[in-house]
Amino acid sequence: MTPKRWLLQFPPRSAPLPGPSGRPGSSERLMMQPPMLSVTMDGVRKAAERSREASYRLQSMSADSKDRALRAIAEAMNRRRREIVSANEKDLRAAEKAGISKTLLKRLRYDGQKLDESLASIRALIKLEDPVGKVLDRTELDRGLVLERVSSPIGVIAVIFESRPDALVQISTLCIKSGNAVILKGGSEAESTNRILADTISAAIEKVDAGFEDAVQLLSTRGEVKELLRQDDLVDLVIPRGSNELVRSIQEGTKIPVMGHAAGICHTYVHSDADIGMAVKICHDAKCQYPAVCNAMETLLVHKDIAAAFLPRMARSFQKARVELRGDDKTRKHIDAKRATEKDWGTEYNDLILSIRIVPSLEDAVEHINKYGSHHTDAIVTSSAGEAKRFMDRVDSSSVIWNASTRFADGYRYGLGAEVGISTNKTHARGPVGLEGLLIYKYRLTGKGHIVADYVGKGAKKFTHRRIR
Amino acid sequence: MTPKRWLLQFPPRSAPLPGPSGRPGSSERLMMQPPMLSVTMDGVRKAAERSREASYRLQSMSADSKDRALRAIAEAMNRRRREIVSANEKDLRAAEKAGISKTLLKRLRYDGQKLDESLASIRALIKLEDPVGKVLDRTELDRGLVLERVSSPIGVIAVIFESRPDALVQISTLCIKSGNAVILKGGSEAESTNRILADTISAAIEKVDAGFEDAVQLLSTRGEVKELLRQDDLVDLVIPRGSNELVRSIQEGTKIPVMGHAAGICHTYVHSDADIGMAVKICHDAKCQYPAVCNAMETLLVHKDIAAAFLPRMARSFQKARVELRGDDKTRKHIDAKRATEKDWGTEYNDLILSIRIVPSLEDAVEHINKYGSHHTDAIVTSSAGEAKRFMDRVDSSSVIWNASTRFADGYRYGLGAEVGISTNKTHARGPVGLEGLLIYKYRLTGKGHIVADYVGKGAKKFTHRRIR
Repeated sequence: MTPKRWLLQFPPRSAPLPGPSGRPGSSERLMMQPPMLSVTMDGVRKAAERSREASYRLQSMSADSKDRALRAIAEAMNRRRREIVSANEKDLRAAEKAGISKTLLKRLRYDGQKLDESLASIRALIKLEDPVGKVLDRTELDRGLVLERVSSPIGVIAVIFESRPDALVQISTLCIKSGNAVILKGGSEAESTNRILADTISAAIEKVDAGFEDAVQLLSTRGEVKELLRQDDLVDLVIPRGSNELVRSIQEGTKIPVMGHAAGICHTYVHSDADIGMAVKICHDAKCQYPAVCNAMETLLVHKDIAAAFLPRMARSFQKARVELRGDDKTRKHIDAKRATEKDWGTEYNDLILSIRIVPSLEDAVEHINKYGSHHTDAIVTSSAGEAKRFMDRVDSSSVIWNASTRFADGYRYGLGAEVGISTNKTHARGPVGLEGLLIYKYRLTGKGHIVADYVGKGAKKFTHRRIR
Repeated sequence: MTPKRWLLQFPPRSAPLPGPSGRPGSSERLMMQPPMLSVTMDGVRKAAERSREASYRLQSMSADSKDRALRAIAEAMNRRRREIVSANEKDLRAAEKAGISKTLLKRLRYDGQKLDESLASIRALIKLEDPVGKVLDRTELDRGLVLERVSSPIGVIAVIFESRPDALVQISTLCIKSGNAVILKGGSEAESTNRILADTISAAIEKVDAGFEDAVQLLSTRGEVKELLRQDDLVDLVIPRGSNELVRSIQEGTKIPVMGHAAGICHTYVHSDADIGMAVKICHDAKCQYPAVCNAMETLLVHKDIAAAFLPRMARSFQKARVELRGDDKTRKHIDAKRATEKDWGTEYNDLILSIRIVPSLEDAVEHINKYGSHHTDAIVTSSAGEAKRFMDRVDSSSVIWNASTRFADGYRYGLGAEVGISTNKTHARGPVGLEGLLIYKYRLTGKGHIVADYVGKGAKKFTHRRIR
């Protein structure tokens, strides 16, 4: 789960930045000019080619080499701790001068404590078994002819992230563990920190094995990103980590598959038979526990038969948290709320604002969610397992939740270990994505001189197709 | 595995058609004008919206309903056998008049026998267990809070296929079994056959359950396809089944994920320690058994130390099959061959033509394959398990093969049951793709009023993250 309004140094340049509450403040816009480095487009193509070359070497890198590389990164980062922190202080000073918000400064900060957290993540990653080369299934096609499906790295992954420098460390190490080459582009406000982190990582892994050369590359300008997104013959997957605008602009601008989510319009539907106390607690958590993130609730749907009993209690709970309520006409008969317009149903507030609608049935709730939602995370509160199943079967979202808060939809809480991101894609990987989202498989067939002609025509050999455990 | 040169009624209009051998004949071009039906672009958008609606109903369709729908299709096709065959005869007559090749006529033919084959496939599909709703894994996040990852349909799938009417039946029934809505567009030369098949299928399934309305829709013009490929908010996946040109033009023209392969430049590498008899047999099969298909060998790579012993024997075998050989200078010292140019290494002949190159090492063979190949299927012939492993780890292709013919890379031979297609994608599904390529998963979380706030801060509850079998 990713905070949705991270600093973006990406078109549109005039995109609103989060205010101190993590919400976009219209009066606060990006004042800092990114350094306009000269972009050598040819250089980007060459960098992508080097990544592709590196990816071929990484594919067959041993688990031991990869873990030694991770250990070397942790050691080097620890050794260069002072340099790294002081580079970050430089970025922080420049950002402060440029007047960016406290929330953003906090995200930009990479101090000793943050560095220690990175080191802890790396050590956890080393402990995980090698995800590459696992035999996923094995079939005997005929005597002596055995087919295996084996997990393998995707290849070259481009990661476009916002200001948080810890993302650079996290994603690079995930890519190394999974045998992928990675090309990174961070926000320019974290330029100094990102540069020293990338240099530290590259130098450390190349010392372990020359095969790691170009495994981790860092681009520095936006123009380079645009060029990189054109290299669909060299880059296999793009992962944007940042604001919805960042994700959307990347999706629009490339033919490379993009893994992520452009919006998080999450719903909670309170069914007629819901336990009202439970519903109030869940909805309060879903809206208020951290409103600036993608899995926070944006619209509350209420069954008409429970509205009179539920809505006033719910509204009191929201009033305490200063949530602005916007309701349809029926809602406004029960509680004090602004009038919600059609636009509200499709809006991701990322803020203490909530739209509320009364629906005549579970089917109408499902229809509303599939129509206005972003297929991210949606919940139902009901006492009936049957109704819950109907809801969860029909709502077309990456996470469907019964009697719990939408805020649980997150890689850490789901127990995936490291989180690559949350995907609303319908192919490859969906929902919170862990290390396995960086993997694909290949088929490995071993014979003893087998040819297809022997399996064709009269008297042909027959396939056994026997699954081998 | 799909024959690569199926009739295409798709831009470029002037694309060469297969000659009688299944190979493109430059003198033979598409003479038949497709009927220029009026294209209502608004109609395509509406059709896609109806598919999306249908996909929501299909998601929760019971296994029983889906199997009854498949049974109803088989019964209706059997009942309307005469009408279907006579519609096909009409298409055949028109095609014959237009002077299309015998190979293409054969592919266009949908007679009683082909219909019976379709019925047999449907019966086999009914016997498979429901692929939807399978719990892939289950984790207890905390007491009473259980997370399941459940297989689910992708949603709306567009299939653009060539003249073979059996593809329409196959893909529609695969989509029904996997709970996906499908929008089909076949070649216009099969218009009458496709229309009656689609009508028969739609009528049959709608009688079983009204929820199947719009589950299978057929477009009729190329203009409509172009418009359909723009509906990236409604269509989740495009599967082109046909020529490389078809696949490429679709990949260029849409933001929707495309599953397939645009080329099949497959290699066999004969290592220095290969059993020469085995190598000759395998290479002959890979080139000659069916040269017009994507998994046939296009380039033979030979280790320099075995060239003198191997190449003359190999050449005699190829001469018997009238294979045109094109070799690099070193090859031409051993055998009679035309001079291969740089262009040959990147050419998919789909014909009895083969390029041959002598390489100094396994590494050079791998490098050649990763550079010039299409990441489809590549084989090594060697007596050494270690060398085979090195090759198979480093060659970045969907299928890597040791001591067997590249021609085995095919859904039927791999035992996948029905084949959706062969994918050279690096995400979602790779290699021969069966029913599981039409599926994704969703996360289903069940709680008892759990909220995230309880897991944050001092004295917070802890996650158990216990895998449940």
